[in-house]
Amino acid sequence: MLAEIITIGDEILIGQIVDTNSAWLGQQLNPRGFEITRITTIPDRREAILEALELGSKRSDLVIFTGGLGPTKDDITKKTLCEFYNVDLVFDDASFKNVERIFNHIGREITQVNKDQALIPSNSIALLNRYGTAPGIWIENNDAIVVSLPGVPYEMKDIMLQEVFPRIENRSTDIIEHATIVVSGMPESVISEKIEAIELGLSANLKLAYLPNYGVVRLRISARGKKEDALRDQILKVTTEIRSILGQFVIASEDKKIQEIVGEMLINNKQTVSLAESCTGGYVAHLITSTPGSSAYFPGSVVTYSYENKTSVLGVDADLIWNKGAVSQEVVEKMSNAVRLKNNTDYGVAISGIAGPGGGTDEKPVGTVWMSVSSKTETKSKVFHLRGDREQNIERSGNIALEMLRRMILNSELSST
Amino acid sequence: MLAEIITIGDEILIGQIVDTNSAWLGQQLNPRGFEITRITTIPDRREAILEALELGSKRSDLVIFTGGLGPTKDDITKKTLCEFYNVDLVFDDASFKNVERIFNHIGREITQVNKDQALIPSNSIALLNRYGTAPGIWIENNDAIVVSLPGVPYEMKDIMLQEVFPRIENRSTDIIEHATIVVSGMPESVISEKIEAIELGLSANLKLAYLPNYGVVRLRISARGKKEDALRDQILKVTTEIRSILGQFVIASEDKKIQEIVGEMLINNKQTVSLAESCTGGYVAHLITSTPGSSAYFPGSVVTYSYENKTSVLGVDADLIWNKGAVSQEVVEKMSNAVRLKNNTDYGVAISGIAGPGGGTDEKPVGTVWMSVSSKTETKSKVFHLRGDREQNIERSGNIALEMLRRMILNSELSST
Repeated sequence: MLAEIITIGDEILIGQIVDTNSAWLGQQLNPRGFEITRITTIPDRREAILEALELGSKRSDLVIFTGGLGPTKDDITKKTLCEFYNVDLVFDDASFKNVERIFNHIGREITQVNKDQALIPSNSIALLNRYGTAPGIWIENNDAIVVSLPGVPYEMKDIMLQEVFPRIENRSTDIIEHATIVVSGMPESVISEKIEAIELGLSANLKLAYLPNYGVVRLRISARGKKEDALRDQILKVTTEIRSILGQFVIASEDKKIQEIVGEMLINNKQTVSLAESCTGGYVAHLITSTPGSSAYFPGSVVTYSYENKTSVLGVDADLIWNKGAVSQEVVEKMSNAVRLKNNTDYGVAISGIAGPGGGTDEKPVGTVWMSVSSKTETKSKVFHLRGDREQNIERSGNIALEMLRRMILNSELSST
Repeated sequence: MLAEIITIGDEILIGQIVDTNSAWLGQQLNPRGFEITRITTIPDRREAILEALELGSKRSDLVIFTGGLGPTKDDITKKTLCEFYNVDLVFDDASFKNVERIFNHIGREITQVNKDQALIPSNSIALLNRYGTAPGIWIENNDAIVVSLPGVPYEMKDIMLQEVFPRIENRSTDIIEHATIVVSGMPESVISEKIEAIELGLSANLKLAYLPNYGVVRLRISARGKKEDALRDQILKVTTEIRSILGQFVIASEDKKIQEIVGEMLINNKQTVSLAESCTGGYVAHLITSTPGSSAYFPGSVVTYSYENKTSVLGVDADLIWNKGAVSQEVVEKMSNAVRLKNNTDYGVAISGIAGPGGGTDEKPVGTVWMSVSSKTETKSKVFHLRGDREQNIERSGNIALEMLRRMILNSELSST
């Protein structure tokens, strides 16, 4: 079964917002046997929507539109669907009850534009939107299933989960399985040479892809076919071969983020970590606490953004900061040890750098970041010279710090066996 | 001038990564007079790339491809470009020198796949990639300009800034200007009714769009035409009218995030804020410190994730936590005041809740979040019942907490005048 996603919205075309809906839809549709052949973002214009409906219904079994269902004048999806199918808008009682329920809850009066939210194309079924006033629209004919959903992420996701997936379950005979191996410390080109024989020998229903980012390469193996078990066996054979060649450079055999890998190591070892962040400003704590269950190994952390804070909260000597600078090996090592002792954790991580755009000097330009990881028995530190903008420097610093932590945990595991 | 963006990569179609490159390209191309008519993500397949080249060259003046230029077997963009234009790959000396420079720097030997990175289609110009081994590709003929760039964000951005924009500057005669007004505390449908007359009276080259998210609605006014000044005047006239109708519900007259709005208020008032985060785990500190210059009003914060940490770091009475629960009005008020006093800031913000998926009870289900904002003279607190997944609950909590802070700062401004 082929599917495509059409996102309607000038705000995406001009880059005012990033389209995260499509990624979620891809993740959800793939395991249900739908291959996403295309994701297209088009403007809020009649002609663009009509063309997308025409092409989409021809080439795909399922076409999902998001956006353009709101109550305002720039929301033209419903009337354009009517034009395409040559039908009228009709009033849907259940959708109106939902609008009433929501307006009663917030204690506002219903206006005409709110009432119009309950109008749907006469050839469609309304899909209940529990979190908003715009119902989803389901239209099915011989060509394709066309689903039109609001663009607000939590409304779209809830309608997909509650209303759309139950209707499309078991419509596909083929299924698609994926597995991912995460490799650290080896460039994409070297990996590719080492596993060339495996790649050349892959059977036709298998595919291997490389996704490099932040010094880590993800290898994704995809398989397509009829039987889940057979596909899993095929994938397992390939991943086992790759793992035996790449050895310790494989840091995970599932698609996990570095904070998840570190979290599992800490849980297995019954160990804990705390953080003292300066230039990353809470980003590493955010990464760690994004993982459910992180309270088992993360009691808390501090963001010591000012000089005074580094002294008053962590006890870093003010003279040391004055003499060496807040972005220095000495200060960052003090920070990682102080936060570890303060929180009584097994590991302490500290990051201090110049994220930019301001704050750089000739000696320490923007992108200079000192990191330290410490345990009861050792303190490691390293300087990095990053070259991104503020956002990228914060993100890369966070990922590098977690990778440094992973290596220290790994060494402690190796030395204790 | 019409432009379109084609992103090549199965990893986006299956939702393994989110396409952030296209948003950046949209932001950059629009003010340079290029209207993005379409963003399409296609698989790493020859036929899909050929079709995109065919359609793109016909309907747009500029077609930007990202992805598929790496050294591995799934990277087929260059050879497909050759097939489309019926040309061969030729060796480019400057690109090879760049590969050598990078490999010398990291101290690795160059292999054949690395050398092949210097091959480019014979009808193209190589665009220097300072941060990677794959050069960008520039092909220009009577139909269109086709640019092919690596998918790695910081490589793509640097090539655009250094090599592509200088080549396309001044090619467009029309320009496009945007302005955004941020509205808080009024639903989209109410705004739409209040400004209906303005919207109906817009001249043909103006467009108004509504972007609702997290209780805030952004109104975007776009204008297209020849002269920058005239467009700015047109936009200013509309935004002034809208502001006069919506009054105090307008919280910013530029496209700013809530953390930027709060940051500017604090700078203007010479005030400071610190945070005590539990369920948001550093996310709010991350939002605040994402803004350049935030060190002027943010000395630091704590993430008190465990019960013990709330007591040891903030001095919240252990009996109080035991009796009322960590997610309670009493505890969150103590936290916001304790962190404010500890950091000697004008405001303290605290968030304690159950982000999920675990940790919910009948009395306090997942999504229950207590927030408090305090100053020397007042302490406010409020409970919210969110209904998203872990990630959404963290994001919404962070945005709500910053909005609560904004209102307290605003009240202090109003009462001091």
